[in-house]
Amino acid sequence: MEQAKAPSLTYQGSGVDYEQMDPAKRAAQICALTTADNLAHHGMREVPWSRGESVYLTEEDDRYNGHVEEGLGTKNRVAEAMRRLTGQLSFNLIAQDLLAMIVNDMITLGVMPVTVAMHLAAGSSDWFADEPRVANLMEGFAEACDIARCTWGCGEMPTLKVLVHPDFPVLAGSAAGIIKPKSRLIDPRNLRDGDVITFLPSTGIHANGLTLAQQIAESLPDGYLTDIGNGQTYGDALLVPTPIYVPVLDDLLGAGIVPHYTVNVTGHAWRKLERATEPFVYVIHAVPEVPPVLQFIQHHGNLTNEEAYGNLNMGAGFALFLAQNDVRAASDVVRRHGMELFNAGYVTKRGDLKAVEILPLDLTFDAESLKVR
Amino acid sequence: MEQAKAPSLTYQGSGVDYEQMDPAKRAAQICALTTADNLAHHGMREVPWSRGESVYLTEEDDRYNGHVEEGLGTKNRVAEAMRRLTGQLSFNLIAQDLLAMIVNDMITLGVMPVTVAMHLAAGSSDWFADEPRVANLMEGFAEACDIARCTWGCGEMPTLKVLVHPDFPVLAGSAAGIIKPKSRLIDPRNLRDGDVITFLPSTGIHANGLTLAQQIAESLPDGYLTDIGNGQTYGDALLVPTPIYVPVLDDLLGAGIVPHYTVNVTGHAWRKLERATEPFVYVIHAVPEVPPVLQFIQHHGNLTNEEAYGNLNMGAGFALFLAQNDVRAASDVVRRHGMELFNAGYVTKRGDLKAVEILPLDLTFDAESLKVR
Repeated sequence: MEQAKAPSLTYQGSGVDYEQMDPAKRAAQICALTTADNLAHHGMREVPWSRGESVYLTEEDDRYNGHVEEGLGTKNRVAEAMRRLTGQLSFNLIAQDLLAMIVNDMITLGVMPVTVAMHLAAGSSDWFADEPRVANLMEGFAEACDIARCTWGCGEMPTLKVLVHPDFPVLAGSAAGIIKPKSRLIDPRNLRDGDVITFLPSTGIHANGLTLAQQIAESLPDGYLTDIGNGQTYGDALLVPTPIYVPVLDDLLGAGIVPHYTVNVTGHAWRKLERATEPFVYVIHAVPEVPPVLQFIQHHGNLTNEEAYGNLNMGAGFALFLAQNDVRAASDVVRRHGMELFNAGYVTKRGDLKAVEILPLDLTFDAESLKVR
Repeated sequence: MEQAKAPSLTYQGSGVDYEQMDPAKRAAQICALTTADNLAHHGMREVPWSRGESVYLTEEDDRYNGHVEEGLGTKNRVAEAMRRLTGQLSFNLIAQDLLAMIVNDMITLGVMPVTVAMHLAAGSSDWFADEPRVANLMEGFAEACDIARCTWGCGEMPTLKVLVHPDFPVLAGSAAGIIKPKSRLIDPRNLRDGDVITFLPSTGIHANGLTLAQQIAESLPDGYLTDIGNGQTYGDALLVPTPIYVPVLDDLLGAGIVPHYTVNVTGHAWRKLERATEPFVYVIHAVPEVPPVLQFIQHHGNLTNEEAYGNLNMGAGFALFLAQNDVRAASDVVRRHGMELFNAGYVTKRGDLKAVEILPLDLTFDAESLKVR
């Protein structure tokens, strides 16, 4: 007789309710738009379609400028927990996650990050007094900047008593970057029927889905020390850092390969593949291998494929929509960075239909599944 | 017989310990510096002396670029408390404070903010579901951007359960800006013996000293509803927003008046006047009128002048160090913005001595009082 399954852990159940949150995002977007005319004072103009993209663009005669603000989410809770359990310092790893969250968003339109800032808001001055932890975090962020070919210029480190939990700071930051020459712009309006959907591989959970991952840890007798089946503890597997895709994109653009669009696979996971404004159907004929830690989460969280692929990257770290003619050359560039470009499917036009069809899983995400981009 | 005084509320007593925090800032600065060479990849070079200033600069042939990351601190607690007490929405006011914290730092070296981002990290999705509150906040931020002549381009609004208090989000953000033409650069190396110390007026507490301000509210029978002596409640007086000094600086620079240095008077208050690297003595012969709310805080917090002027702006919102010949023209520009430029003293050279001497108060801040800039 089949064992009764535990109730499925969904995102609403975990306390993060996108239905509630998204109207605020929409209000922000509406108010922000009213300030667009102020660019003229600085001799710049807005790139209107970039509002709501992962990076905001302004235009000048010789360049585009890009600006991103992003955060780590709650992944530092795992680093703190693993330190208590094992003594190991992994703040350098989450520092890479933080930078990746910022710069992997920035590159989606071809913007190369030039300067980045770290915002580290702690709930207690004690957090800052732990010098090995602080040094480990700072060193990791600097190393990640070297990978991302950008410079750590500034930052902010307040103590916000009451607002922030004393053990778990809020880690965030920003980047300012450029597209120069302007021919390196990735413009979603280039997306068309017949484009190839390719993925850069993910290394694990990256920095999305951690609230759920932590709930699962709480439900396991050995928590973060549970072997996920390959000899690795759950905590260590969660802490494998997000790849920084900047050098890959930089070298693709440098080789004259300009993707028709790209998507950084984060919070809405595979639902985000249909992020472009123009309606297309994204037909997936092959799904990449799922990293063991995500298999573990899907199993122990008892997630349907809809929940798993709708919220976790499931092996797809970053999507590149490429002209068919560019796929081979792009694969060569990607391989030089020690990764394999995964050929997942194609973009097609079916009138006004917008959907992600994952054929091997018999799963479709319709336009409604991604209300706010 | 004189009444026994309550023990003085100092910053260490309020739980924000700069002695503990500053080594982390120093570690960050050391690690950040190792990434400076990455600028060459983008055809830029660093402005080394800008590290540790309020805004980080990179240089190109035709411009400087500036980047700032900043936060509001804890002032939103006052807005939330006043809403509970009176029903009034003042999130538009703290939104202006947030923008002011970002852009008033950016202009210190002459950088004009072009694009800004808001980071609003809540502890519960419920916070975002309160539409009047959210709308009020967003409208205030957009209005503040119009004052600051910049564009709200992007942002981030995560729900960070456990990390952030459900009622009190962390509000932060960033700005990217430019100095163009390059002659508008404010270079602290221009600071010299005989320069005039002038202040743009503050409107109240701005966004620094709020932890202390809140402790005082807790100690008062009527809390935030206490009349501070001019018919205004303590809560309303605290919520008067920080001025956005961008248009004043923009118009000064546009008129060819380039200050030799400037200081945004924030966390270290008057200690920050000696922020420039080169040692000078800052002789203050006149102090501006103290806003009633700061008088109230000094009285009820039983702060010495050293504590008050070392942590609260005490009427000096932004310091401009000007060549003597520029003072009259600068005053005219400032007056057109509805403010009076306050002539507070002069800069002088006394060998390697670095100090702020506030003669009317018989108070000196030596170099040790400002360990991290």
